[in-house]
Amino acid sequence: MKKSHLFTPGPTPIPPDALLAMAQPIDYHRSDDTVALIKDVLEKLKHVFQTENDVLFLTSSGTGAMEGAVTNLLCRGDRVIVLRSGKFGERWAEICDTYGVNVLPIDVRWGDSVSPERVEAELSSQPDAKAVFATLCETSTGVLHDIEALAGITQNTPTLLVVDAVSALGADDLQMDKWGVDVIVSCSQKGLMTPPGLAFAALSQRAWEATEKSDLPKYYLDYRKAHKRGLEGSVPYTPAVTLLIALQCALNRICDEGIRNTITRHSLMARATRNAVKAIGLPLFASSPANTLTSIRLPKEIDGKAFVKMMRERHGITYAGGQGELSGKIVRIAHLGWMNADDVIVAISAFERGLMEIGYDVELGAGVAAAQEIFTKLTNTE
Amino acid sequence: MKKSHLFTPGPTPIPPDALLAMAQPIDYHRSDDTVALIKDVLEKLKHVFQTENDVLFLTSSGTGAMEGAVTNLLCRGDRVIVLRSGKFGERWAEICDTYGVNVLPIDVRWGDSVSPERVEAELSSQPDAKAVFATLCETSTGVLHDIEALAGITQNTPTLLVVDAVSALGADDLQMDKWGVDVIVSCSQKGLMTPPGLAFAALSQRAWEATEKSDLPKYYLDYRKAHKRGLEGSVPYTPAVTLLIALQCALNRICDEGIRNTITRHSLMARATRNAVKAIGLPLFASSPANTLTSIRLPKEIDGKAFVKMMRERHGITYAGGQGELSGKIVRIAHLGWMNADDVIVAISAFERGLMEIGYDVELGAGVAAAQEIFTKLTNTE
Repeated sequence: MKKSHLFTPGPTPIPPDALLAMAQPIDYHRSDDTVALIKDVLEKLKHVFQTENDVLFLTSSGTGAMEGAVTNLLCRGDRVIVLRSGKFGERWAEICDTYGVNVLPIDVRWGDSVSPERVEAELSSQPDAKAVFATLCETSTGVLHDIEALAGITQNTPTLLVVDAVSALGADDLQMDKWGVDVIVSCSQKGLMTPPGLAFAALSQRAWEATEKSDLPKYYLDYRKAHKRGLEGSVPYTPAVTLLIALQCALNRICDEGIRNTITRHSLMARATRNAVKAIGLPLFASSPANTLTSIRLPKEIDGKAFVKMMRERHGITYAGGQGELSGKIVRIAHLGWMNADDVIVAISAFERGLMEIGYDVELGAGVAAAQEIFTKLTNTE
Repeated sequence: MKKSHLFTPGPTPIPPDALLAMAQPIDYHRSDDTVALIKDVLEKLKHVFQTENDVLFLTSSGTGAMEGAVTNLLCRGDRVIVLRSGKFGERWAEICDTYGVNVLPIDVRWGDSVSPERVEAELSSQPDAKAVFATLCETSTGVLHDIEALAGITQNTPTLLVVDAVSALGADDLQMDKWGVDVIVSCSQKGLMTPPGLAFAALSQRAWEATEKSDLPKYYLDYRKAHKRGLEGSVPYTPAVTLLIALQCALNRICDEGIRNTITRHSLMARATRNAVKAIGLPLFASSPANTLTSIRLPKEIDGKAFVKMMRERHGITYAGGQGELSGKIVRIAHLGWMNADDVIVAISAFERGLMEIGYDVELGAGVAAAQEIFTKLTNTE
């Protein structure tokens, strides 16, 4: 009687009403009902993006929206600053390279975040940089970047701040309007509790102005077309109707909870998980950890790939392993989306038993107790 | 007690097992189970594409795969021949324009098809054309192109034949290997009976060789990355897992029926529909109609937009109206995907009643009888 539990940083579990909503007969994407659906979804996304700017959507993975941010905002030969602290920072640079945009990288060791001071210094020496490309949560390492501080730097310059919030939207705080972020891209299968296949972008006024000057080629990922049609509840190309229906269910939940509460819930789950990992006696990998997921550095004697495989096959518990250079060296546990304290307890207790099973010396219950402590503190003090 | 019936040329109705499969808890896209799912789906797609070539998939609308065909095969400044008989032929030209590819268009009146002779003449005068871009079924008009004849022309030249089979795959015959087609692109929400959000491409050996020389920029829509990962049951970016599960259900149905039988079924539904429209006394719009859908030219006194709206709102019957210059002038009835004779009868009988309701002189049952005749003939003679 195995039960499956998904703790990967996307896809994340889908609420049951959203799952069932997808089992309805499909509708035409140009019907009045779908027009109303699209308008409703785009309006509710503003709440999650914490913005009054319009949000547009594409039928693609998050990477499609990332590519769109490059091709819709920039011109061939532009110079841009890219924060590279992991796989997804590297992705910004790869996309820019593809389109002949000159990348000024700021590199740090995987597991560290790029400090706002380094960005400020780079921008001072490169004042003509058209944009700074950053990552809210670098999913490959679990590191959070200080977007508020970065926006404080860029908003007084002509340089745009473009943020990959693919994994962290709805989990880590990102106040687009209040902080002064120019572009946020994200997607459906993370904090938004919807299956993968939809991507989103929100643009500030000055980012929209940049799209008018951009000379890079784009067609399917054209932001202006998607934006214009979206305002009418329409689309340039047949959208993933089924996923829009699931998204509406998920957004209703977030709007009911309120995005500020949603972020607080994630913060609590993250603190509980980190407290548990410390109690178990393993080091956290990220120097400035995100609410989205917790990365755990495994002792050298543990083969991380085998551990992750064993947990899934034997126990139905799916964690994520390390990517790229971190393959086999870290385990990543997401606490993201349709999750609460009970899910965190399942993730931690299974982690304890799994460690014991492979012969690692762990005190059963130590992590769970440490997590409980955080959850209980909230009840008592907030 | 209104029942909804969807007769649009995409999205098309989803089989109930596929709908319910999507309501399962979602899985991680890098799990062994999803690897097996992707491999299975890509293998079964070969049967539908009637090819031994590998099929790749993208998470996007069909237009994403169309753009990919341009950016993965061509170089800046290449010259290509584009068959333009409607909105989707125009789309090939627009994508080529976007990327600095020189378009040599062959235009015909909407409702007509481009003759192979015109393509042969154009290719004779432009022997350096890198590719011919054609549309199997031009969904905006319901016209079928003679891809077998076009392939007969291009396969003895260095010019590649690229076919948009977005709406017609699985409905109109397209024998990639036997005919010698170089590239076929399609998507999930038409003959494949799956919700929108997945796109596909199959490439011949010489088309793959062209991708090695292509210098146009691509990242998210990179065919070579998708192909290489697909062979391992993997993906470069998080795919629409939910839609892959529905696709597997739908492909099982097509593989059980056998693609040759699937096409025969569509041919029969199309013939029955055309016979019905003639019996009702209205003209067919397409000079060489496809199996995918039937376009009907409406009398001047009928406002096509109002008719389509009334049929949906009052009767739950969703037909498609005209696109672009045909808006309000034609009605398009698809007989595509998860459909059989009974669905055609519903579409035709509702059409008869709808015409009567708006005051058009129609003999109730005339169309239905004419459709039945075709279905019965099959039973008696095959």
